[in-house]
Amino acid sequence: MASVDCQESAATEAEIRSFFESAPPLKNSAEVGRNLDEFIARNSSPCGDGRANRVVCVTSGGTTVPLEQRCVRYIDNFSSGHRGASSTEYFLKSGYAVIFLYRRGTCQPFCQSIPDDPFLECFEFVDKSQAKVQEQHAIAVMRAINDHRAAVENGLLLKLPFTTIFEYLQMLQMIALSMNKLGPYGMFYLAAAVSDFFVPWQSMAEHKIQSGSGPLDMRLVQVPKMLAVLRKEWAPLAYCISFKLETDKKILLEKADMALAKYKMHVVVANELLTRKEEVVVVTHNEKISVFRDKSRNDSDVEDPLIQLLAGKHGTYLASLPKMK
Amino acid sequence: MASVDCQESAATEAEIRSFFESAPPLKNSAEVGRNLDEFIARNSSPCGDGRANRVVCVTSGGTTVPLEQRCVRYIDNFSSGHRGASSTEYFLKSGYAVIFLYRRGTCQPFCQSIPDDPFLECFEFVDKSQAKVQEQHAIAVMRAINDHRAAVENGLLLKLPFTTIFEYLQMLQMIALSMNKLGPYGMFYLAAAVSDFFVPWQSMAEHKIQSGSGPLDMRLVQVPKMLAVLRKEWAPLAYCISFKLETDKKILLEKADMALAKYKMHVVVANELLTRKEEVVVVTHNEKISVFRDKSRNDSDVEDPLIQLLAGKHGTYLASLPKMK
Repeated sequence: MASVDCQESAATEAEIRSFFESAPPLKNSAEVGRNLDEFIARNSSPCGDGRANRVVCVTSGGTTVPLEQRCVRYIDNFSSGHRGASSTEYFLKSGYAVIFLYRRGTCQPFCQSIPDDPFLECFEFVDKSQAKVQEQHAIAVMRAINDHRAAVENGLLLKLPFTTIFEYLQMLQMIALSMNKLGPYGMFYLAAAVSDFFVPWQSMAEHKIQSGSGPLDMRLVQVPKMLAVLRKEWAPLAYCISFKLETDKKILLEKADMALAKYKMHVVVANELLTRKEEVVVVTHNEKISVFRDKSRNDSDVEDPLIQLLAGKHGTYLASLPKMK
Repeated sequence: MASVDCQESAATEAEIRSFFESAPPLKNSAEVGRNLDEFIARNSSPCGDGRANRVVCVTSGGTTVPLEQRCVRYIDNFSSGHRGASSTEYFLKSGYAVIFLYRRGTCQPFCQSIPDDPFLECFEFVDKSQAKVQEQHAIAVMRAINDHRAAVENGLLLKLPFTTIFEYLQMLQMIALSMNKLGPYGMFYLAAAVSDFFVPWQSMAEHKIQSGSGPLDMRLVQVPKMLAVLRKEWAPLAYCISFKLETDKKILLEKADMALAKYKMHVVVANELLTRKEEVVVVTHNEKISVFRDKSRNDSDVEDPLIQLLAGKHGTYLASLPKMK
């Protein structure tokens, strides 16, 4: 049994090394690194002075898998990013600083109660530089713009966009290595919909795949599971929450339990595609807690009680550890 | 030779019927149909009175191909929608009414010179309902909001969003059948990046494809070519322009010529991925005209001269036909 485990873990390490070695290099990694280090340094003071002393990395939206090197086609994982954006707001309210690692173009924090295309839909011009917000959107729009600006300017919200699975995993690794300095005060809230399969960069077609000659057969290989290495090597003391989304309710909790054990998560949040905005189940090694949206209010969401519960669990985790410095 | 052609065309008709029969039904088709008919009726008056007498359907952005019926994963075709959005502005300037069939979330007309995320980035609040546009964006933002509103309110711009290949082709068919009333005054400017391959709805996994058991093999079949049937049946007199995008310059013009002949397009616009914002080639049965962006101006784009050229060619086409009532 031990030898099987050992073999499996060795295979995974080789797969992970090969994934990162073969990935196209991250474009702005120096800048991202600088911003990250500043953000972590700023928010690692032990208490008070308007800074946070807990930092959460919220991942949000789906990753893409390019099918061609000069990318025209790719496989995408559907996710509006609503959960990550909304959770970011509640984490800020709960006193966390947030690194928001999000898919370009998905939902942004503070924009939940605003129409699609707000830029074109919400404003009217009164003169050359004064725009009037249409009455029905006024409060939501003002709150969105002001709260968003305040969080960014006060150094409590760092937004980092990604598109491909290669960018996502490289950035997650950078963030985790940087957040490792925070020890158990760091949290990962991994709500992004990460591709399970990818086409290795080397085996990818350089040019656009041509149509016109019958069906297209594709072989995708599994993306190596990074959660285990995040827990074991990148940030071993950080509090880790991952998500399990299934469309088939029957296998959902079973898969959540498996993920908890396999990747040594502290929490797995289980959610089913059709009911995910109403209910989630918080799965830990000894509990399964159903969390519901407050149905007595129209504008409530399930992220509000979920983040309260998770912040509490993170507090309990911190209290359970031997006192640090 | 004739019998081969005949067989091929029969196969295509069966494929097209089967594609539409198996597609999930369009959700808001009654509403779309009403809006379309009103728009066409409004813009088919022969001249004057502020209405257009030429209508172009501009398609824009990429289509998705769902890989699961309860869609979590899909294949996407990359397209920012920049060309379609920008072309829509120039068509409006040239006196066309525009049906803008666009992928949700892609570029919108009048928003070209505005930063990403303008809603959160461009405004500051002065009081509860007055927002001030930041100086450096003031002119672009005001122009965007005012011109967009004017075009929609004057009934010259109808925006119809799609996401999947199923939605796109069903809506294109509805538009074409409705635009057929305009005869040669209708134009199709098919700039959308349409998937070449899809997974037929019936053969699609109902639930999320499970990872954890080795590589994933997928077989995609070709999307039936709708251009031929658009030309032949849906709107035989409309002026049709399609696009050919390749990453490999060597095969680009050859493929453009083939598309021109095979689908009986009036024009194929050939563009290469890396230079598509600087140069395109307008291919007709007897010409290949290179069109360049005006490099003496920073804010120029290739769509400006392209739409002028195409509107002129459409005029020539109209003049060449036997006089209609």
